[in-house]
Amino acid sequence: MQGASEAAKYGAKGMILRSITSKNDNVPHVGVIHYADSIPQIPAVAIGIIDADFLSNALKQEPNLKLQIKLSCKTLPEAQSYNVIGELRGSEFPNEVIVVGGHFDSWDKGEGAHDDGAGCIQSMEVLDLFKRLNIKPKRTIRCVFFINEENGSRGGIAYGEYAATSNEKHITAIEADRGAFTPVGFSVDKDSVSLLKIASWKNVLERASISWVKQGGSGVDVSYIKNAKCLIGYVPDSQRYFDYHHSANDVFSEVNQREFELGSAAIAVLVFLIDREGL
Amino acid sequence: MQGASEAAKYGAKGMILRSITSKNDNVPHVGVIHYADSIPQIPAVAIGIIDADFLSNALKQEPNLKLQIKLSCKTLPEAQSYNVIGELRGSEFPNEVIVVGGHFDSWDKGEGAHDDGAGCIQSMEVLDLFKRLNIKPKRTIRCVFFINEENGSRGGIAYGEYAATSNEKHITAIEADRGAFTPVGFSVDKDSVSLLKIASWKNVLERASISWVKQGGSGVDVSYIKNAKCLIGYVPDSQRYFDYHHSANDVFSEVNQREFELGSAAIAVLVFLIDREGL
Repeated sequence: MQGASEAAKYGAKGMILRSITSKNDNVPHVGVIHYADSIPQIPAVAIGIIDADFLSNALKQEPNLKLQIKLSCKTLPEAQSYNVIGELRGSEFPNEVIVVGGHFDSWDKGEGAHDDGAGCIQSMEVLDLFKRLNIKPKRTIRCVFFINEENGSRGGIAYGEYAATSNEKHITAIEADRGAFTPVGFSVDKDSVSLLKIASWKNVLERASISWVKQGGSGVDVSYIKNAKCLIGYVPDSQRYFDYHHSANDVFSEVNQREFELGSAAIAVLVFLIDREGL
Repeated sequence: MQGASEAAKYGAKGMILRSITSKNDNVPHVGVIHYADSIPQIPAVAIGIIDADFLSNALKQEPNLKLQIKLSCKTLPEAQSYNVIGELRGSEFPNEVIVVGGHFDSWDKGEGAHDDGAGCIQSMEVLDLFKRLNIKPKRTIRCVFFINEENGSRGGIAYGEYAATSNEKHITAIEADRGAFTPVGFSVDKDSVSLLKIASWKNVLERASISWVKQGGSGVDVSYIKNAKCLIGYVPDSQRYFDYHHSANDVFSEVNQREFELGSAAIAVLVFLIDREGL
């Protein structure tokens, strides 16, 4: 978010953001600030939309209103952390890898249930579904919980560096990081041959609640796996994501079990097809 | 629901139904019983799934378990009630009517927020959107809140009888009675010419969150308008409907404002196209 530096250009002493949310409540929805180098680094805060409307009305009545901003946020020292990885080894082509994953860190305000606890556990459930259905994968299916997505993507970068130097062949990597809502589609980032192949499975994917397969972005973490044949983003219904994203609303009680499980199933069906047919 | 009569055929003295719900809670989800004429009318109840599992386990441990069912439900005397109707008169073809509606009664356990307060208010919002955008319809757009859908459809039947004898021409009738969830599609009940025409608006409807237009059912109430050229059901995402349907969970706080408003908008866009282009 570049707003603070943009405001500082015009002499602002601080920036208060009306939270970017679809929910009519008073819960701040927060995010990262990117300060431009040559511009004063002014304090920046997000406030709930009810408070923002109150403040906006107060300013109309009293244009000389003074506001004091007191911030307690701080950057803590660096600490070692890790990606968490589990896999089912392929029976025929163990060296060919299908990654499925989410990110294991979360924003501090909530529990990180939709962003991205759900994506991690859905990815883990893909492996569990193979085991419970006693399906032996031909290729290696690897679940990766990437660390530090919110704050530098160092887990994604480290995995990408590993993939670049490994002898393994990364067929694809699927990221689940858009909340635990009803499955809608798969977004495929290069190449067109893979896209056509995945789109040709439309009839099967529809039975797993997937309406479309389109070219588009994948996910922050898997985007660092530069040598994968294609990268895929799992896309659920987006309409409620910004009720929760980066706010105290993002708690486990707000995850609908059925929508969550449909997501695991949809990703598992895609992984199964890629494992059997290749890309 | 014919379960009670089916059970009575085999000598059952009562029927206890594990609630048909997608939510893992202990809230009974109820419905109508249809007793067969020649079979004893045994008491029938729905219980929450947690209680049902408890009872099932208890029966395994103690096969001679006795259960007492105490019911306080009753049928109250008939009372006069009405459909509630409002309309925008058409400027060019006032005699051609587009109906949009939901049902105004609800099951007694909750507030009837999803079933079908949402459908009624979305239908009313279609008229309001035309007014707020200052769009004068060519044809008459009529919002109907049908009464008694849950318990006999007498509102739908009465409106159908009116439509059959009226000089008006009913172009179509759109029913919203599947909850206030993210818009997904429109289901068109006869005829194929109308279906093709509506499907040809796919690109516009997609911008109103509508993924598909298919042949299929419309809705209980509008189905009585036998002389309409076609009947249409508004279809939102179905995955959470049976968390709420006919239970104490169906309350207004469980309606997501954005999903609700997207529904109003999607129906309004379809009504606008039908009004301009005809069917």
